[in-house]
Amino acid sequence: MAQRYVRIQSQAGQLHYGLLQPDRSVRVLDAPPWLKGQLTDVELPADSYTILAPCAPSKILAIGKNYAQHAAEMGSPPPQEPLLFIKPSTAVIASGASIFYPPQSQRVDYEGELAIVISERCVDCPIEQAQAKIWGYTIANDVTARDLQKRDGQWTRAKGFDSFCPLGPWIVRELSPGARLQTFLNDRKDPVQSASIDNMIFSPEQLVAYISQIMTLLPGDVILTGTPAGVGPLHIGDQVRIEIEGIGSLENSVTRRGTAQVSTDGSKSVANPH
Amino acid sequence: MAQRYVRIQSQAGQLHYGLLQPDRSVRVLDAPPWLKGQLTDVELPADSYTILAPCAPSKILAIGKNYAQHAAEMGSPPPQEPLLFIKPSTAVIASGASIFYPPQSQRVDYEGELAIVISERCVDCPIEQAQAKIWGYTIANDVTARDLQKRDGQWTRAKGFDSFCPLGPWIVRELSPGARLQTFLNDRKDPVQSASIDNMIFSPEQLVAYISQIMTLLPGDVILTGTPAGVGPLHIGDQVRIEIEGIGSLENSVTRRGTAQVSTDGSKSVANPH
Repeated sequence: MAQRYVRIQSQAGQLHYGLLQPDRSVRVLDAPPWLKGQLTDVELPADSYTILAPCAPSKILAIGKNYAQHAAEMGSPPPQEPLLFIKPSTAVIASGASIFYPPQSQRVDYEGELAIVISERCVDCPIEQAQAKIWGYTIANDVTARDLQKRDGQWTRAKGFDSFCPLGPWIVRELSPGARLQTFLNDRKDPVQSASIDNMIFSPEQLVAYISQIMTLLPGDVILTGTPAGVGPLHIGDQVRIEIEGIGSLENSVTRRGTAQVSTDGSKSVANPH
Repeated sequence: MAQRYVRIQSQAGQLHYGLLQPDRSVRVLDAPPWLKGQLTDVELPADSYTILAPCAPSKILAIGKNYAQHAAEMGSPPPQEPLLFIKPSTAVIASGASIFYPPQSQRVDYEGELAIVISERCVDCPIEQAQAKIWGYTIANDVTARDLQKRDGQWTRAKGFDSFCPLGPWIVRELSPGARLQTFLNDRKDPVQSASIDNMIFSPEQLVAYISQIMTLLPGDVILTGTPAGVGPLHIGDQVRIEIEGIGSLENSVTRRGTAQVSTDGSKSVANPH
């Protein structure tokens, strides 16, 4: 099994990066692994921590319409260049946390995606060097208020609500060629999304090179690589699970906003009074 | 004179928040002032530090078309709701640093703006409480590659290049009612932009309340409140200066990308080899 790099919160409230063991205990690293974090002697048993999103990105870049079939279902031709947007870091939640359905929207969609985690500072990166700037891979749900996306023009509000970027559950270093991305809703056996990540129009390396010609990428920054065909609505009470072969499974429930608020990095905080 | 809160880098490379004194020395604070930073005994003389952007926001929200005359010059009616977008934190540079003209664009515009700095964590903030969430005010230049903005649809690339968010030079706590924002190019005596900030369609308090219903605002986060009429092109070699009465003057030169790169927070780093 590939090494699984996690970020956790201990019962004492401390944040740690670590390596997930087969028995679900975590061997703690002394820093994020992309900042040369080394294994310590500390091992936290399975019942002694909460899993967080596996990194705390300074920024999250995301790509629209990076699968031809999804571009078609949105009524668009495939883009000639990567279509770039930003999700705020406050949208990140961990696997297992709740997606909050905002009162401003009547149509909130799941979008299962492969996510890239950046290894080191990266400016004007040639495509031949882009692979070395990718530290690893995880899974994301680019949750989108589809009605607001169409109404606003700019996608910032539609894709920027708190909890609209489930990320995790962990990071692996390698991607299996042709790995399949599948999204499942509730108890349905058939996936609502199913595609090979090889069907991306712009590859992870092309995306890193393209973005780094615009803005500096920093260690731990995240790129969401776009969703395949099959996007559709979420409803309060739904469970949505995104699987990528060789990585794992990102699972979140959908709840009404206001019952329990989740902080920036996926750790639980006090209830939201609204 | 109003207190001026700065962020600086000492000759030893250390970052400090501080209070700028009339003789340009800086009395050092032990933390960002919005995190209850207290004055220390350290005072750095005027020639011993470099001024940085006055905060290091986790995110920068920005508002499109928040002055009716600017909406008109862009061929749009005034928006019914704030038009939200995000600039990446890697775009921030200090007053005095260079705006890099990217090779991807043939038309880069200045946009002088009032910027708000957030005081504390802010979720679903009622408008009556929004003033208390504003720690202070500074000046921003929402530099925009106008050709790419029109071509891309999403504004992320056009407004997200490294160096496209000059911010500073310092933060003041209070805003003078009716304060005038003016933008000057090179030696021209007449401003290219001149408007009262009271002409904003959505006030700072309305913007804080609106954004906080979408995403959590964090201490030190920044909101750019939109530019008035008079936007126009910058050219390599230009000096652009944005003044707001009661705050100060944000001044930046425009250079070809690649001669000297500036890091995320406005501090100088090694030359960019490209």
